[in-house]
Amino acid sequence: MFERIKAARERLSGHAHRTPVMTSGTINQLVNARVFFKCENFQRAGAFKFRGAFNAISQLADEEKARGVITYSSGNHAQAVALVGQILGVRTVVVMPVDAPVGKRSATEGYGAAVVEHDPRKTSREDVARALAKDHGYTMVPPFDHPDVIAGQGTAALELFEEVENLDQLLVPCGGGGLLSGSAIAAKGTCPGCAVIGVEPEAADDATRSFQTKTLHRVHNPTTIADGLRTPSLGKITFPLVLKYVEDMKTVSEEAIGEAVRFLFHRMKLVVEPSGALGLSALLSGRLLPGNRVGIILSGGNVDGATMSRILNAVP
Amino acid sequence: MFERIKAARERLSGHAHRTPVMTSGTINQLVNARVFFKCENFQRAGAFKFRGAFNAISQLADEEKARGVITYSSGNHAQAVALVGQILGVRTVVVMPVDAPVGKRSATEGYGAAVVEHDPRKTSREDVARALAKDHGYTMVPPFDHPDVIAGQGTAALELFEEVENLDQLLVPCGGGGLLSGSAIAAKGTCPGCAVIGVEPEAADDATRSFQTKTLHRVHNPTTIADGLRTPSLGKITFPLVLKYVEDMKTVSEEAIGEAVRFLFHRMKLVVEPSGALGLSALLSGRLLPGNRVGIILSGGNVDGATMSRILNAVP
Repeated sequence: MFERIKAARERLSGHAHRTPVMTSGTINQLVNARVFFKCENFQRAGAFKFRGAFNAISQLADEEKARGVITYSSGNHAQAVALVGQILGVRTVVVMPVDAPVGKRSATEGYGAAVVEHDPRKTSREDVARALAKDHGYTMVPPFDHPDVIAGQGTAALELFEEVENLDQLLVPCGGGGLLSGSAIAAKGTCPGCAVIGVEPEAADDATRSFQTKTLHRVHNPTTIADGLRTPSLGKITFPLVLKYVEDMKTVSEEAIGEAVRFLFHRMKLVVEPSGALGLSALLSGRLLPGNRVGIILSGGNVDGATMSRILNAVP
Repeated sequence: MFERIKAARERLSGHAHRTPVMTSGTINQLVNARVFFKCENFQRAGAFKFRGAFNAISQLADEEKARGVITYSSGNHAQAVALVGQILGVRTVVVMPVDAPVGKRSATEGYGAAVVEHDPRKTSREDVARALAKDHGYTMVPPFDHPDVIAGQGTAALELFEEVENLDQLLVPCGGGGLLSGSAIAAKGTCPGCAVIGVEPEAADDATRSFQTKTLHRVHNPTTIADGLRTPSLGKITFPLVLKYVEDMKTVSEEAIGEAVRFLFHRMKLVVEPSGALGLSALLSGRLLPGNRVGIILSGGNVDGATMSRILNAVP
């Protein structure tokens, strides 16, 4: 699988941004460590998801491209698939929950995707997408449980390990586990001494329970501000990868997520969405013994104005 | 004066950040130009002001350092002087208006400065500071009207011209004219074909009127969201420099300032304060014929949560 990540890196070259790694003297002092932030909020379409989507769709056969692709996503993967479709001239259809953030939906449509709404209380978005794929011959590009998607997501950590040597820990947000497992495989291949740790909202702690019990747990439509991490469970492919390569899982409170978003806003002048700030949340809330050199993937920056206002105004 | 900017660059090396230059495919398409953003919101203490403050204070004689320095500022220069004082072990006193943004005041105190409040309806902050300087032997480090301060501010544009060749235009916010005149002098020395254009809020258009009439105009406590640009007028030193080196001045509405802050937030994931977004405001509101290659100095990122919420929620 590490070879697939390296191949994905070649494929993404000239298409995905090589995002910057940023640091903050204030945070280093505060947590008594050296912290390196991989800024995927600056990635195309505003999140790491572009990497996996491009890696998967660019490898399709011409007749698959001609029929179009479909996916299901609450937001960032949707935007990424839509933008990649626009770049490669591939028709894209996205199944989105009716309560998806307005900004993410309008951006997805802005990139030219057809959005199909579904009601998460009544149907599974995955089932809706699979039915449409069968009827219309679309190729499914799932949000995480696909080897090419996982390999694409792993390129962010690969770039970080190439730029910053000898990290002791890498903190990665965990929804369906695509970014997390890809990052952990990249670590084993380039920086085997680095412990990769997944971070989840307490309200959506299925992966943490799955990791601890070695049995797949699920959550149903959890209430967390981290809208990108509301996925019901790890996948058939990502679950064993997480068990094999990930060192530990941690959870953080909603308050800690807000605190991290505010810190990134005020101290680092970065717009990071709640889901993207989970790694820093874990570090700030003391759920981790800080390593000497800590990497954090800021996975995305797509947050609407109303949500950010709510977070900024909730200063403790 | 250009030689002083080059000397300042050497002096700042290892102390100020060399801030990144960022780009956005969306903005390039929107304005039909190639736009390069110099991100001084990532500068130490959150704004370009660190450059001038460090350049001025680091050159003081030991006995001047021992007596301490004083300044007057509504915010970013205050924080910069305070931080430089902390770094160099120099006592700092800052005269601030009672209505200064809370975040800027607390950051100034956080860096160890003593803050002296004044009421801008009753006294001039400059007079208050001069009286204290005389009584206590402090050295005055004014916010813009000082050759070492101007030379320090000019290093931001110098770095931009070194990194991005052949700019046709450079858009710079204008308060007291320190950043603007420093940038214009840096342009003449490194990229003489580049037209440097100052941008002001319509509500604080003293420099534009001064530029057009070649007579110094003043504003009194203007009402603009761009709190860093409420300075009453250009200075004795900056006014002639602006007349000599600056190509043109433009003004922008309060709505256009908000629009630019929102654009930077949503599309580029950057936290930029209203005063820092003036260059992009001018470009987006069509006040300029876009050049092929346009530089914009995003001068700072110190915006409190309440102000940013107000801007984000004012989506037209």
